[in-house]
Amino acid sequence: MKKSDLTVAILKEGILKQNNVLLSRAITLLESQTEKDNLLSNSLIEEILPFTAKSLRIGITGTPGVGKSTFIDSFVDYLAKNNKKVAVLAVDPSSRISGGSILGDKTRMEKLINTPNVFIRPSPAGTILGGVAHKTYETILLCEAAGYEIIIIETVGVGQSETIVKDMTDIVLLLTAAGGGDDLQGIKRGIMEMVDLVFINKTDELSDLELKKLISQYEHSLHMLPKNIAVNVISGSAINGTGIELTWHNLQNIKNNLTNTGDFKKKRKDQKINWLIKTFEGLVLESIYKNPMINEQILLLKNLVINNKISPINAAKNLEKTLFSKIK
Amino acid sequence: MKKSDLTVAILKEGILKQNNVLLSRAITLLESQTEKDNLLSNSLIEEILPFTAKSLRIGITGTPGVGKSTFIDSFVDYLAKNNKKVAVLAVDPSSRISGGSILGDKTRMEKLINTPNVFIRPSPAGTILGGVAHKTYETILLCEAAGYEIIIIETVGVGQSETIVKDMTDIVLLLTAAGGGDDLQGIKRGIMEMVDLVFINKTDELSDLELKKLISQYEHSLHMLPKNIAVNVISGSAINGTGIELTWHNLQNIKNNLTNTGDFKKKRKDQKINWLIKTFEGLVLESIYKNPMINEQILLLKNLVINNKISPINAAKNLEKTLFSKIK
Repeated sequence: MKKSDLTVAILKEGILKQNNVLLSRAITLLESQTEKDNLLSNSLIEEILPFTAKSLRIGITGTPGVGKSTFIDSFVDYLAKNNKKVAVLAVDPSSRISGGSILGDKTRMEKLINTPNVFIRPSPAGTILGGVAHKTYETILLCEAAGYEIIIIETVGVGQSETIVKDMTDIVLLLTAAGGGDDLQGIKRGIMEMVDLVFINKTDELSDLELKKLISQYEHSLHMLPKNIAVNVISGSAINGTGIELTWHNLQNIKNNLTNTGDFKKKRKDQKINWLIKTFEGLVLESIYKNPMINEQILLLKNLVINNKISPINAAKNLEKTLFSKIK
Repeated sequence: MKKSDLTVAILKEGILKQNNVLLSRAITLLESQTEKDNLLSNSLIEEILPFTAKSLRIGITGTPGVGKSTFIDSFVDYLAKNNKKVAVLAVDPSSRISGGSILGDKTRMEKLINTPNVFIRPSPAGTILGGVAHKTYETILLCEAAGYEIIIIETVGVGQSETIVKDMTDIVLLLTAAGGGDDLQGIKRGIMEMVDLVFINKTDELSDLELKKLISQYEHSLHMLPKNIAVNVISGSAINGTGIELTWHNLQNIKNNLTNTGDFKKKRKDQKINWLIKTFEGLVLESIYKNPMINEQILLLKNLVINNKISPINAAKNLEKTLFSKIK
């Protein structure tokens, strides 16, 4: 089917019939930068909205080297064998599933890609992290409309991306690995504060005593943080498949608790509001840079700044005043 | 001195006299969220602007575990012993020097803090990555006015923060470490594309043959990228102090080349323009959320969104239209 033949009705019908090709086309449309494509994708999102919100949205974070790829592969494989439909998305443009790494392990991904009931989608290459947020959220919605019951959002556990993931998922799982004794060193407080479950990978070569000590170190760190609910620390070896089933049981427990306390509903509301705000901010900046008057002013001020006639701060203030003098 | 006694004149004089206490106070003012403090810090930046731009701005990036802390400690120590005044800033709120890590190695930092000619400043805790960018740039300017000749901006080599660092520094150094054979695996293409020099750490236990092979792997990867200038790959052991002097010589060569080609001047212009744009965008969002009419509309739309009366996309569009209908 040619791109020009794609209508909202065709895409909607295809997605609701769980057609992965049309789902992919819809996501591509969503990621497009042209106004025409955006109009189309916005209408599509409106249309499929009643069929969304039916999945469990799981964020998985962890620094490079902890075995995140292996874990996701094992976990998704386990879920697929238990007849779950699973979608894996990446929020970080430099993430592995975006093909961003220099020596990306493509072979393993290709195995997952060919697993029935599994949908893999990298985030658009070259996009800026902040800008990718609401597009990823909309991708989650499309996947849900296509019947995916579990949506995994992969991210790298440093910097800003896990905040974005936290804002669009129900549960955040932190993946870490045994080794070196300074395991906790690399994990930032901000990340510990936002996780709902910790999985320590690569623990198969530890003695019982070592494992116990390691887990209690994590528990202690988590205990020091201002958290309402205790966070479980579990362990295993993703490459050997141990701890995977335990992870799933823990995630289900967390989900049940969230549902019982009403926090699940609250989280979903917050996700929606966050999507509204992020979309709004994106639209505002887009409109500003499309405005001919503002563009003219920017060019003028850039020249003044380069030639030291005005400081960048004052130039920015002038620009902002020009914009808002029209609003007030 | 009480906070209320701090005037722009006192701060300016103190900074130009290389008074670190007043420099710190000025940075705190800059990071403040109150309007009064911002007015003060903006005037100060205006005043010290003629005394800036005289340092070499170096970004240092690398994932946790490569020995970045040790490298920066050794490198800064080396520079200080060679009578250079060095400031170390962190762009990532979760960075070590922000005290963000659970088991942060404070002892070593304290050693650096007490080194004469060295100024250490973490980024403000709890700030959002995007928002920290122009504040860090302004901190660079303040440090330059206080006579610091080398400004090091530390960041974590994953996610968005290194783009921010690239936009405010002259040279980006990528720190990586030998080990495991899959060293390159964790390094993202986007980061390789923006580095000017690579330092492989922890190579002291490699044989000559292994080291040669490792370096040529990096060189090969760099060679595959669209780059105008060849990027050197050097190695050493930060903990033993080997390779530190070589790093400094390489950085000086890169700086000289940039100066000769005119790229240094161009980079500084781009940094200024980027600062203008980022400040402008910050001011715009700030003004929007201060506007009572917009706030009223946001509240209204949030309720409609939560009760499924309107989709978040359409709510965002409405909001944006309300705003821009007044501009057009």
